[in-house]
Amino acid sequence: MLNPADEGFLASLPEELLRPVRPADLEEPRGRWRGQGAAVAVPRSTAEVSQLMRACAAARVGIVPLGGGTGLVGGQVMPDGPLPLILSFERMTAIRAIHPQENVIVAEAGAILTDLHAAAGAVDRMFPLTLASQGSARIGGNLATNAGGVNVLRYGNARDLCLGVEAVLADGTVFHGLKRLRKDNTGYDLRHLLIGAEGTLGLITAASLKLFPRTAVTGAALFVVPDPQAALALLSLTESQLPGMVSGFELIHRQGLDFLAETMPDLRQPFAEAPEWCVLIDIGLPAALDATEALMALYEAAGDLVLDGVIAQSETQRLEFWTLRETIPEANRRIGSISSHDIALPLSAIPVFLAEAAPALARLGDFRINCFGHLGDGNLHYNVFPAKGRKRAEYDSLRDAVKTCIHDLVDGFDGSVSAEHGIGRLKVKDLETYGDPVKLTAMRAIKTALDPLGILNPGAVLRA
Amino acid sequence: MLNPADEGFLASLPEELLRPVRPADLEEPRGRWRGQGAAVAVPRSTAEVSQLMRACAAARVGIVPLGGGTGLVGGQVMPDGPLPLILSFERMTAIRAIHPQENVIVAEAGAILTDLHAAAGAVDRMFPLTLASQGSARIGGNLATNAGGVNVLRYGNARDLCLGVEAVLADGTVFHGLKRLRKDNTGYDLRHLLIGAEGTLGLITAASLKLFPRTAVTGAALFVVPDPQAALALLSLTESQLPGMVSGFELIHRQGLDFLAETMPDLRQPFAEAPEWCVLIDIGLPAALDATEALMALYEAAGDLVLDGVIAQSETQRLEFWTLRETIPEANRRIGSISSHDIALPLSAIPVFLAEAAPALARLGDFRINCFGHLGDGNLHYNVFPAKGRKRAEYDSLRDAVKTCIHDLVDGFDGSVSAEHGIGRLKVKDLETYGDPVKLTAMRAIKTALDPLGILNPGAVLRA
Repeated sequence: MLNPADEGFLASLPEELLRPVRPADLEEPRGRWRGQGAAVAVPRSTAEVSQLMRACAAARVGIVPLGGGTGLVGGQVMPDGPLPLILSFERMTAIRAIHPQENVIVAEAGAILTDLHAAAGAVDRMFPLTLASQGSARIGGNLATNAGGVNVLRYGNARDLCLGVEAVLADGTVFHGLKRLRKDNTGYDLRHLLIGAEGTLGLITAASLKLFPRTAVTGAALFVVPDPQAALALLSLTESQLPGMVSGFELIHRQGLDFLAETMPDLRQPFAEAPEWCVLIDIGLPAALDATEALMALYEAAGDLVLDGVIAQSETQRLEFWTLRETIPEANRRIGSISSHDIALPLSAIPVFLAEAAPALARLGDFRINCFGHLGDGNLHYNVFPAKGRKRAEYDSLRDAVKTCIHDLVDGFDGSVSAEHGIGRLKVKDLETYGDPVKLTAMRAIKTALDPLGILNPGAVLRA
Repeated sequence: MLNPADEGFLASLPEELLRPVRPADLEEPRGRWRGQGAAVAVPRSTAEVSQLMRACAAARVGIVPLGGGTGLVGGQVMPDGPLPLILSFERMTAIRAIHPQENVIVAEAGAILTDLHAAAGAVDRMFPLTLASQGSARIGGNLATNAGGVNVLRYGNARDLCLGVEAVLADGTVFHGLKRLRKDNTGYDLRHLLIGAEGTLGLITAASLKLFPRTAVTGAALFVVPDPQAALALLSLTESQLPGMVSGFELIHRQGLDFLAETMPDLRQPFAEAPEWCVLIDIGLPAALDATEALMALYEAAGDLVLDGVIAQSETQRLEFWTLRETIPEANRRIGSISSHDIALPLSAIPVFLAEAAPALARLGDFRINCFGHLGDGNLHYNVFPAKGRKRAEYDSLRDAVKTCIHDLVDGFDGSVSAEHGIGRLKVKDLETYGDPVKLTAMRAIKTALDPLGILNPGAVLRA
């Protein structure tokens, strides 16, 4: 791969396709790694991505693809090894086409998620992928990491929203798979192989994506539940009463509300006393239904499953509920976690997991635990913090043990140690530890078959 | 591969895992090919599938997987080449587990689709995959071919209903991927690679599948539309009015109703005079909504898009509408098609395609065309028949030209020449002709990486 001294390679590339490396290109949100790169390539078209890929293949130079840089597992920064070329999609941001009657939008990899939302909204449609970093995340990165977010329960992950992709493979050839079909059984599904491969098998340059009709009626409620088991029973009841209309079902623990009160005392809290567990239920209904009525009917049918509740009386109040939920990660950051875990569990294993995880951690030390997240998808963010009055640094020696404790438990319940963030560089070892060995062997065979030189995002997902 | 004279290989296998070949094992529904096989292996467990695979790998014997044998593209029969071992899943029919609160069922590959429906129904849930051959099709085959059917609009194809798979790979190793998670971003999605690969990359032995709450209220209508363009506008309107509640949106042409009248004069027809185009709309609503009201509201909002209509007044009448739709393929068989096409098109291309296809065919000869199918998914069955009073045999010399005419047109609109049936052996050449060449190269590389000896379903999807 590129020797830092080898300026000849960069000189061989068209000057207008390069820009200098800026500090932001080498950073990732958690500040765990600092990347490196010989230069940043800024192609304007798929043909130019192909041209750059061919040049890298010929020179055996690694390519690190860069979207919005919002990934949480270090997939976007290569901290060591021979200097790679960073390939940023910042100039490939076009909405290539929009087909309202087909409910399809075709966008380039660099399109920012909120720009997709706006383009869909302009033709009275919605693109449902919704996540905290949507103001800077780019759709190519969302697809490469199979991003999740808060609407997965109803609309699925990023892969479920994608009808087709165009991608440049490791030899520079272009896979023209930008179909906009709901059914297409013509051979192996290369689209689904590239989605979630984090740029290690090919670079997605554009995608055709599903749009949906805008929701006519929205509603939300915060319901206090006695325990996680009741929250699951309530989820099941909600989905039976409102099939296909439940957009979000988020679990919130008292610790999250306490962190909000501690770090942001001005934020209005919905309950006089923070409940041990509550859920945020978000629904989208057709025009013929009334959200308050639907949520009242749910409350009444729930019986003992719900101890107390607030139903949003306006869209403003609904957004306040969501602000509460979406501000928890910021409160977490201010408190400062020892270790954060993006886990998924089979739904019915969640109560047992929670009952076992807390005492298992207590055997290691004295912690505060904030467990919250997308209960509807079985996806919890199980984050571990210092005990009140103690500092993060005091726990440095325990960090690995905490992570191992949680991941071992998750694995024992046949869960996932990366529900929505991916493997990147952070979890390469976790994948080796917890991944199915036959799957890993198959993954390595596929990687070798499609990227024999190992130039695509070296070191991400699989060890370089 | 196995020499017919080589009895040593068969003698090396456990006797209780073999049975003689029966004629039905070598047949496929269209009668186009007759398969061959040294014996039929009937494993009772994944471990036995693994044992058989290892034996085949050691002896370089091909394996042809057999589910219900209902596939329409010859993926289940190997007509030539060295005798393969046929591996039938007929003894692996267990429902391994059912988790009503999680909305998950775990079934072995040999489970028959209607048995899955019954198991789901017994816990007040539904498994939505629904197709004509469901009484004999097995879920392993449904997944291997990514089966479609009539509920795709609302619930997706087989792949969209699958959370995880267990599979035996070409070297006999077992991929334990039977997760029941809605989110799991840990490496390449082997599940989606195996689904739709038609047994050429591995043998799916079990799957965890999504269940759904049963629909509280169902309804259906037959609406007469002036033309396909209006049908599409009506589809868009229906999905806006009843988001996520439209289970089926089927297009029916006058020719289909005429064939029904001609071959089954006793079947009750809904309209005194068969309309040129009509659509069957099927909806599933929550308990709070009324189906007749919803369909009346749709009829009123539709204005000129709907010329006439019948709304089912009972579940019996709704099922009558579906019987009408589901009997069209039988009427087609009785008339006898010259060439049938399972195509998908971008929705907005459908009217233009239909307008161009009929005159293009007319230039070749005198035909009757019955175009019907899953308009909601853009998936049409475009079937071409002899002119009235003429015989199929008279058209033998035109068959290839008809198929090429339709497929060329479909390809020109960036459609698919196999929407839901797969490639099998019937469309290997079509895939070579119309498939993206870069995708084909990648497919071959993946095939070689995962099945280097080429023993998995030789000759299906890719040329052996």
